[in-house]
Amino acid sequence: MNVSEIETPAAIVDLTRLEDNIVRLQKYLDKSEISNRPHIKTHKIPEIAHMQLSQGATGITCQKLGEAEVMVQAGVRDILVPYNILGVQKLNRLIRLVRRARIGVTADSNVTISGLSAAAHEHDVSIPVMVEFDTGLKRCGVETPQLAAELAALIESSPGLQFAGLMTYPLNENTGPFVEEVRKLVEPKGIEVSCVSVGGTHCMWEAHQYREITEYRAGMYVYGDRYTLSSGAMTLEQCSFSIRSTVVSRPSRERGILDAGSKTLSSDLMGLDGHGLILEYPEAQIYALSEEHGHVEFSRCDSMPEIGEVVTILPNHCCVANNLFNEVIGVRDGQVEVVWPVQARGAVL
Amino acid sequence: MNVSEIETPAAIVDLTRLEDNIVRLQKYLDKSEISNRPHIKTHKIPEIAHMQLSQGATGITCQKLGEAEVMVQAGVRDILVPYNILGVQKLNRLIRLVRRARIGVTADSNVTISGLSAAAHEHDVSIPVMVEFDTGLKRCGVETPQLAAELAALIESSPGLQFAGLMTYPLNENTGPFVEEVRKLVEPKGIEVSCVSVGGTHCMWEAHQYREITEYRAGMYVYGDRYTLSSGAMTLEQCSFSIRSTVVSRPSRERGILDAGSKTLSSDLMGLDGHGLILEYPEAQIYALSEEHGHVEFSRCDSMPEIGEVVTILPNHCCVANNLFNEVIGVRDGQVEVVWPVQARGAVL
Repeated sequence: MNVSEIETPAAIVDLTRLEDNIVRLQKYLDKSEISNRPHIKTHKIPEIAHMQLSQGATGITCQKLGEAEVMVQAGVRDILVPYNILGVQKLNRLIRLVRRARIGVTADSNVTISGLSAAAHEHDVSIPVMVEFDTGLKRCGVETPQLAAELAALIESSPGLQFAGLMTYPLNENTGPFVEEVRKLVEPKGIEVSCVSVGGTHCMWEAHQYREITEYRAGMYVYGDRYTLSSGAMTLEQCSFSIRSTVVSRPSRERGILDAGSKTLSSDLMGLDGHGLILEYPEAQIYALSEEHGHVEFSRCDSMPEIGEVVTILPNHCCVANNLFNEVIGVRDGQVEVVWPVQARGAVL
Repeated sequence: MNVSEIETPAAIVDLTRLEDNIVRLQKYLDKSEISNRPHIKTHKIPEIAHMQLSQGATGITCQKLGEAEVMVQAGVRDILVPYNILGVQKLNRLIRLVRRARIGVTADSNVTISGLSAAAHEHDVSIPVMVEFDTGLKRCGVETPQLAAELAALIESSPGLQFAGLMTYPLNENTGPFVEEVRKLVEPKGIEVSCVSVGGTHCMWEAHQYREITEYRAGMYVYGDRYTLSSGAMTLEQCSFSIRSTVVSRPSRERGILDAGSKTLSSDLMGLDGHGLILEYPEAQIYALSEEHGHVEFSRCDSMPEIGEVVTILPNHCCVANNLFNEVIGVRDGQVEVVWPVQARGAVL
């Protein structure tokens, strides 16, 4: 099937670019002597995870247990879930996964650690637990090296748990000093910081400058989007993910309406102006989204599309757009090569 | 199962409120002598569509053919798809649906009309087509009564098509004058405007003031959300849809992190400040969303939650939040009564 025959709106992956993106980061991290643990939240597709592993990734990252369940079922055997796992149902699901694969988790409080330890001890399993710290994003993560060191010691002394290092997002200039401070506090007690795991596609090419890093988690690098483009981490020619969309209405001379709205592109702005880049009309502005319509101003364009014309949109944020689709279509040289169900789509649990 | 045992994040529907919402609008529209054609894009669940029909709705509205396919398969027999259907694949799918149910569509251009007519004529079916007009939203829809009248005449003269009236969104003060003008232009030619279909939950209680209206399409009224609350169309006690979410981290005294992010709540702001209302902590502000984390500032609250505590979020926009879930959980008096797969979730085609 030719790409022109694909019904719209459709999520398209250029397979050659996808493969190149996977190889490019792997080579860079290999050269930098940093382990690669790509984040599958971007694609949520087992086959792409296996492509990443076969190129040299040591394991993968999943943001939720539901994603990890899909990936373990697909044969992946080494997964980090950088999340505070809380509550009896989630702890039971974690225990079931731990029996089948190497599953690491993170914690930033003694509440999380005591729950993990009780579950691990009861079920006689051993769980690697990293301490999450905050480099300034103000999401999860302890805010001081002292607290990180205390939690590391608590993990180390908790039945059923092993302290597995430090985790943060994103990588920035605060990372190194924080890690050094924690090391100074825990090493005299015989506690080793065996892994320092950081993430972020936008900052991935800076990883080699930080000698403290031992592991990298990047997600968006496989696809790329308007945000990674604006960050300078990828070029337009490297972006592999796009949305094909049809112009369904031209209500006035300068205005056009697409069949892709917030249920296709998502409303994520990522600090950008407008809701996506139309490759064929780069001066056009997607100024608003309804759920199933994209509203476009074409006044700055030299030419304007006809009703029925298909355009290619680089979305602002590939991860959330991918998550809205039941399947993505892999193409090479203009031909459909694979239709992938987005198997871990909606895996918020 | 008690609601407290539901794993988070979860989309919850209060069944009593849902039923009350369905009955309330139906009674109002009955009294106003306006047909009710609820929009199922909000819930995407066949059983809720049948609840709406059994209370007196004359049919339903689906925004995409994919939604209509799910609903026809579930036994619904009268559907309006207010969309410009373009391209051979979509026209073929429309024809298949038309053979099984009464399916109306809309058009705002001669391109759409000629495609519909060619398909209907070739397959020897008859398709009701409404003309979409714009009351100021600047989405689809013709901008002048003259153009609406021209398209009505074109539909009426096109093989396989019947002119089925006028459609717009939202209802506002421009609706009446536009419709009157079109009537003046087409009635002398023997063309009847048999239906005037308008939509919008935020303006639904104004419908009786517009004598031109014959049909109403509301979607969000079944659930309600922070936007419908702010519009004044529903009270907090009428909102039936909410997201249960766990506080997974309390990195500082005034900050908390939820297990619901943009892949749970969506990033839709709907002109509001923040990403949802936490019912137990109404002064809290969900100031940012990551994909799987909600970032909350609790400084204005008298008390603050513990790690592991479950909270209830009224999302900004129920339609897109519902679309992110594989299933929603119906509860009554604190007990789970039904788990509904969101069957038309992701039906963007």
